Amino acid sequence: MNGRRAYLDHNASAPLLDAARAAMVAAMDLTGNPSSVHGEGRKVRQSIESARRDVAALVNTKPEHIVFTSGATEAAMTVLTPDWQMGRSPVRMSHLYVCATDHPCILNGGRFTAAQVGRIGVDGQGIVDLAALQNALAEHNRDEGLPLVAIHAVNNETGVVQPVNEIAAVVRQAGGVLVLDAAQAGGRIVLDLASGIADYILLSAHKMGGPKGIGAIAAASDLMMPKPLVTGGGQEKGHRAGTENPVAIAGFGAAAVAAARALSEIGRIGEMRDEIEARILEICPDAVIYSAGVQRVSNTTFFSVPGVKAETAQIAFDLAGVSVSAGSACSSGKVGSSHVLKAMGYGDENGALRVSIGAATTKEDIEDFTRALSGLIARRNSATRAA
Amino acid sequence: MNGRRAYLDHNASAPLLDAARAAMVAAMDLTGNPSSVHGEGRKVRQSIESARRDVAALVNTKPEHIVFTSGATEAAMTVLTPDWQMGRSPVRMSHLYVCATDHPCILNGGRFTAAQVGRIGVDGQGIVDLAALQNALAEHNRDEGLPLVAIHAVNNETGVVQPVNEIAAVVRQAGGVLVLDAAQAGGRIVLDLASGIADYILLSAHKMGGPKGIGAIAAASDLMMPKPLVTGGGQEKGHRAGTENPVAIAGFGAAAVAAARALSEIGRIGEMRDEIEARILEICPDAVIYSAGVQRVSNTTFFSVPGVKAETAQIAFDLAGVSVSAGSACSSGKVGSSHVLKAMGYGDENGALRVSIGAATTKEDIEDFTRALSGLIARRNSATRAA
Repeated sequence: MNGRRAYLDHNASAPLLDAARAAMVAAMDLTGNPSSVHGEGRKVRQSIESARRDVAALVNTKPEHIVFTSGATEAAMTVLTPDWQMGRSPVRMSHLYVCATDHPCILNGGRFTAAQVGRIGVDGQGIVDLAALQNALAEHNRDEGLPLVAIHAVNNETGVVQPVNEIAAVVRQAGGVLVLDAAQAGGRIVLDLASGIADYILLSAHKMGGPKGIGAIAAASDLMMPKPLVTGGGQEKGHRAGTENPVAIAGFGAAAVAAARALSEIGRIGEMRDEIEARILEICPDAVIYSAGVQRVSNTTFFSVPGVKAETAQIAFDLAGVSVSAGSACSSGKVGSSHVLKAMGYGDENGALRVSIGAATTKEDIEDFTRALSGLIARRNSATRAA
Repeated sequence: MNGRRAYLDHNASAPLLDAARAAMVAAMDLTGNPSSVHGEGRKVRQSIESARRDVAALVNTKPEHIVFTSGATEAAMTVLTPDWQMGRSPVRMSHLYVCATDHPCILNGGRFTAAQVGRIGVDGQGIVDLAALQNALAEHNRDEGLPLVAIHAVNNETGVVQPVNEIAAVVRQAGGVLVLDAAQAGGRIVLDLASGIADYILLSAHKMGGPKGIGAIAAASDLMMPKPLVTGGGQEKGHRAGTENPVAIAGFGAAAVAAARALSEIGRIGEMRDEIEARILEICPDAVIYSAGVQRVSNTTFFSVPGVKAETAQIAFDLAGVSVSAGSACSSGKVGSSHVLKAMGYGDENGALRVSIGAATTKEDIEDFTRALSGLIARRNSATRAA
């Protein structure tokens, strides 16, 4: 492999884009606290506000409706709360409805108690059960408060694109509030807050080529906002205290600009993904590719190979210079069973492998992947024959 | 001024150190999620763990007792909670005791209700009233839970160094838990957790030459930890969910190494500060320098000039190319009255100016400051004569 590596784990963290890197390096030269009123402070402030406009443009909302956080997880923890404010008036959300295949930071329910969180199931392809959502909202007791719904736009493991417009219509019909976890959606599907896709969108920079450790809450309107998770100074209009991270924010802004343009690359990336899936089925005709029957983002494939443990396979791929994922990488070194596959009705004894690519992925990367998979399957087959 | 600027606002945010910048640029090349088990993920993990060792060394604790956060404010919000855990057993803190001159993120009481927070006063020099703390803790009802005490080590406005060892002795004697806000203390005083200075220390990277947007909770022991503020993935041993910020963490690590060395520069920085104060009193003999009678960190001077509004003075300094602060820069553009001076018993009609320097400050910076102050005082004096 000559030290070459094929990095096919963009859904865990996409490589930093050159434009993001350049913006971050430039922001490093900005001395001063963005809350300071002197020249240095104002320059940092300008840099942050410029990035805010870029992030707002990606989701078609106003810059003043963007609240920067340290990532999508903090953003989720902030909006998933029973306690909201409309100006100075408190607003109560009495129940949270999540989707069984949401990311753990949504499934956990944020600041809701476990009893206040209900799970909506998915079908065998991983698509949220709209009728179940509708029924749950119909049974919601509005005397206790509003219903809050939090659902991912794109699944981090399967790449499934949820029917976001239909979800929004159901939630609107029921008078609920909708939070769309778009951590995996930036640059992969259109996210238009002005079109009513959601009330709040959660974003993560590093899934779209920005730096790790920065994200945002993008609101369609800031009339009603969650009780802040972090208080102290009055940063982010009081919605999130603490000195901002101008270097990460600058990188996020640049990545948002790139993500808006990346939508034109979706077709080309999809062809590479289809090529990868064709190779998988060629080498291993008994492989199962999950959610292949429904709309998925064009960069992701999630599959199982009978007789091969995903964890073992991942290590074999890694040794062969190919980085893929066994499930999602959401906690330190943990490789557990996939709650996503479980919710889809699979037994999941062997787990599954995720290959996720991007605009920077090359034919050579695909060759490396194919070679590594062939080796793996050859070893499995000879082990089976020997047994 | 030839475009030259004298940046004398290190307490708001210190200029990024070259070593921190280099570490950050290197970390930008690390693709991958630090929770991923493949080669790329492991390299990011190594970078984070290396920085963790450096931060731990600065405060003399074990690396595994460091929890990275997005800054000191999030760190405060995390530890200031009634709900703690010792392993799987819950531990209750029933009351929080803060100091009247603490930073707003401590004064706010974090996750305690307003009724659960008591304020301990300071004397005219800004030193915490130890007898009042002792009395408050003596009256604490232990049946309801443990007393939690949160006090700053170094005041961000006056530079006052609190009697941290005496505070620790009082809290220990009362069986309480002590959180030391050391945001302004890194590299300015010795912070030795092993010596019993506190149970938990809050750190901020950008006050010591690291990047903005990263901080830490440093614990003397992790036997008892606060209920996490942010949950989701299992990052930071479950104490703080969300993908880490490896670029900011790398810069923090480098700044921590530099801060440990910077203690040897304290004397030289103190000479510059003394020079600044001598100039202030020479130009304006009626100036008041706050807390001059007690131990302060060597880089800070906080002063008032009769007949000159601090806000106006700050703008005049800024126009003259000199960046100083009117109070602290803890919220967006807000220049309010100083709660620190109020707690010290001052009327604070005109506010006060803060000059805060660092190892990079030069004689030329001091000349620029002197010239700007002379101009300001000359204008004040001629305005007074004209009136």
